[in-house]
Amino acid sequence: MRITLIGSGNVSTHLAAAFKNAGHRIIQVYSRQMQHAALLAYHVGASAIDSLADISADTDLFVISVKDDAIKDIAPHLTGQGKLVVHTSGAVSLQELQNFTKNAGVFYLLQTFSKTKEVNFWDVPLCVEGSDDNITKMLEELARTISNNVYRVDSAQRKVLHLSAVFACNFTNHLYDISQQLLAEHNMSFDMLRPLITETADKVREHSPADVQTGPAVRHDLQTMTAHLQMLEGKDELKQIYHLLSQDIIKNHKAPNSDK
Amino acid sequence: MRITLIGSGNVSTHLAAAFKNAGHRIIQVYSRQMQHAALLAYHVGASAIDSLADISADTDLFVISVKDDAIKDIAPHLTGQGKLVVHTSGAVSLQELQNFTKNAGVFYLLQTFSKTKEVNFWDVPLCVEGSDDNITKMLEELARTISNNVYRVDSAQRKVLHLSAVFACNFTNHLYDISQQLLAEHNMSFDMLRPLITETADKVREHSPADVQTGPAVRHDLQTMTAHLQMLEGKDELKQIYHLLSQDIIKNHKAPNSDK
Repeated sequence: MRITLIGSGNVSTHLAAAFKNAGHRIIQVYSRQMQHAALLAYHVGASAIDSLADISADTDLFVISVKDDAIKDIAPHLTGQGKLVVHTSGAVSLQELQNFTKNAGVFYLLQTFSKTKEVNFWDVPLCVEGSDDNITKMLEELARTISNNVYRVDSAQRKVLHLSAVFACNFTNHLYDISQQLLAEHNMSFDMLRPLITETADKVREHSPADVQTGPAVRHDLQTMTAHLQMLEGKDELKQIYHLLSQDIIKNHKAPNSDK
Repeated sequence: MRITLIGSGNVSTHLAAAFKNAGHRIIQVYSRQMQHAALLAYHVGASAIDSLADISADTDLFVISVKDDAIKDIAPHLTGQGKLVVHTSGAVSLQELQNFTKNAGVFYLLQTFSKTKEVNFWDVPLCVEGSDDNITKMLEELARTISNNVYRVDSAQRKVLHLSAVFACNFTNHLYDISQQLLAEHNMSFDMLRPLITETADKVREHSPADVQTGPAVRHDLQTMTAHLQMLEGKDELKQIYHLLSQDIIKNHKAPNSDK
């Protein structure tokens, strides 16, 4: 397929490489900043543009990967020729594109990307939705050229998926951050925790998280929890986070579970 | 070394296998429940006992891996012969054993164990502390026979390490659980999130968590955060957890970070 990428951030960057490796052609890369567009365009043999007036109609698909609230501003510039337009947002409904065109879809990558770290794209879950069944099928086929994990997900489900991902990924990473800060205050390296973090994530590849919950809260070990809250004296946010998550674990595991 | 294990839970089970593989001899395994003691003892060629009166003095080291509050009850039964006694708790100070013997130490495994999942023991961080320098050195040497990650950690540091591990492991696993519950309510499988969880943990193997934080909070994306809180209407604990963690991310990342 001939594909035009709107945006040059992490999602566009990884998507561009995956599409190119699968034999698709990237026609143009748009960014408000020419140097960003140029860098990504160079890597995938596309033209770089920094004005939506320069968009070429000589393409099969526009993929919008920009900030959520910019999607509605960009969409009307792409829908003139009746070409298929998709966005890649977890939180924005299909309707926001359908306000401008009936040839609309969503191509949501359920993964966290950094520009500096490669990802095995074949494992990335791709969630597709089209404004009609033909578009959904077409997006599904396109998705299967770059991933083995393709799902049909409607807008309501995708919002829940995105919310779940905030808990499982964004909040989890912040907990890593908190633990690093606690260690640093006592001259210990985050390296000490890295194997534990890896193993905690590994465990739920084959188990349900509830079945492998460990720690003072699931043991209903009030003595340790009280001692931990005392250690957090003066750090009000961390105390609240500790208390709230511990209470929620206890509520979810009414029978104490010994992990010793 | 000749080693006696007090307790037959996850820590004892994994430690027993690692010691045996390294050529040490497990003499006895104690558990209050004979069938638990017998199962572990059978696997490592030891005797099983369910009464502390049957403890043999014919050993070099007692390793206590029981619930934190049971350590002080068990210790006096082991210290009669002047043999080295260690516990494996993150939250209990060395002093609690030193109340009974000067030959005391701590052998803390900074890892999460399930009986059903194998762990590469060479990667497990072992944190040792002895009541004198000879004991510390001896525990360090013993630790190096089963792990490549051996640290000297005093009781004050170990408590912080344990607290950090609650954030990075126990609370993280509970966030996985929350995300699974949200997906299940909308007929989606936790499988969809598994690649994201793996990648989130993988990222911090080489990066500092603060440097790879993504999501609505770090982008200061109030619109998405408000929508997420609305989706959590009626789930008060989850709303509070969402709000508190988002606020703490914003506080820690005062300049918004675009991850698109």
